[in-house]
Amino acid sequence: MGGPEIDKLIGLLAKLPGMGPRSARRAALKLLQQPESRMLPLAAALADAARAVRPCHLCGNLDSRDPCSICSDMERDRSVICVVESVGDLWALERGSLHHGLYHVLGGTLSALGGVGPEDLNVAPLMSRMAGGGVSEVILALPATVDGASTAHWLTDRLRPFGVNVTKVAQGVPIGGALDVLDDGTLAAALRARRPS
Amino acid sequence: MGGPEIDKLIGLLAKLPGMGPRSARRAALKLLQQPESRMLPLAAALADAARAVRPCHLCGNLDSRDPCSICSDMERDRSVICVVESVGDLWALERGSLHHGLYHVLGGTLSALGGVGPEDLNVAPLMSRMAGGGVSEVILALPATVDGASTAHWLTDRLRPFGVNVTKVAQGVPIGGALDVLDDGTLAAALRARRPS
Repeated sequence: MGGPEIDKLIGLLAKLPGMGPRSARRAALKLLQQPESRMLPLAAALADAARAVRPCHLCGNLDSRDPCSICSDMERDRSVICVVESVGDLWALERGSLHHGLYHVLGGTLSALGGVGPEDLNVAPLMSRMAGGGVSEVILALPATVDGASTAHWLTDRLRPFGVNVTKVAQGVPIGGALDVLDDGTLAAALRARRPS
Repeated sequence: MGGPEIDKLIGLLAKLPGMGPRSARRAALKLLQQPESRMLPLAAALADAARAVRPCHLCGNLDSRDPCSICSDMERDRSVICVVESVGDLWALERGSLHHGLYHVLGGTLSALGGVGPEDLNVAPLMSRMAGGGVSEVILALPATVDGASTAHWLTDRLRPFGVNVTKVAQGVPIGGALDVLDDGTLAAALRARRPS
């Protein structure tokens, strides 16, 4: 309609999570109407982030510093490492200021069906960190799926030789969650893990 | 969480139509995980489009050519001009290949409440095109709102001296639309504009 530049822009915007062809057209139009104030700043922010941001060589977090701002924050409790599947999960925990120790991003979970083995995950750097000493607890905050559970089981075995306390996040009824809309698996897990009231 | 570059990128992505803070974080993460294959191409597409795309000086369409690819397409019927409110409306008509003449993008509608007068719209270039001759019909494809209707009325008066046929797109029941969910205004317009069956 308006030349190859517009078609290409709409095509790339449509591939973003949460966007489709329709919203990509609306976004492209909005940007094209404000090239100086919206379009060029977004282009620069993308290029800056692509240039600056790299995975932290210690924990796998994405940051413009390496070691990342969490690993290099001396205020944090360096004796507790929380293992997460993805940087998105790390961001979720950080938004709630829920964990004051360090992290380790696995980059996935073991999956027999998906053909994901230990060598495909960010496991070796975690073992190096354990061997370095000073860690007293590893919290496994992995997804409550079959693959997440088998990854947690496998990691617990690998971490045992280091003599650390290995824990898992609790499963149960989400806060504010009505029982009648929960799936059976969650209800069963919440019942099994019942505690004195 | 990961430095100022990531925060800035999420902030700009969240301002796109159809995006919010949550989807902007997901989009940023997806892009950060594929800097070479997704992030830099999007940055380049934005910069290319911002550099190349300008409003057509004849019709107001956004294009990397001026006159735009529609105005310079000699296969199109140059005697019919379709007046639309926005480039988005032009794109919608072009997607359906519904109009084979030229366009004129007003860039808005007259609005007493919004303080939009004729001098705020792309009207003078339309009058120049009319004065240039060769136009036999002007189709007003403006929104079916109070402001759209008053703009159509005002434009019809301005176009009359040129001796052209001024028409409006029909209002009525949308194809596939059930009568019982339509608003009263649309139902009334459809009844008034009834035709022999």
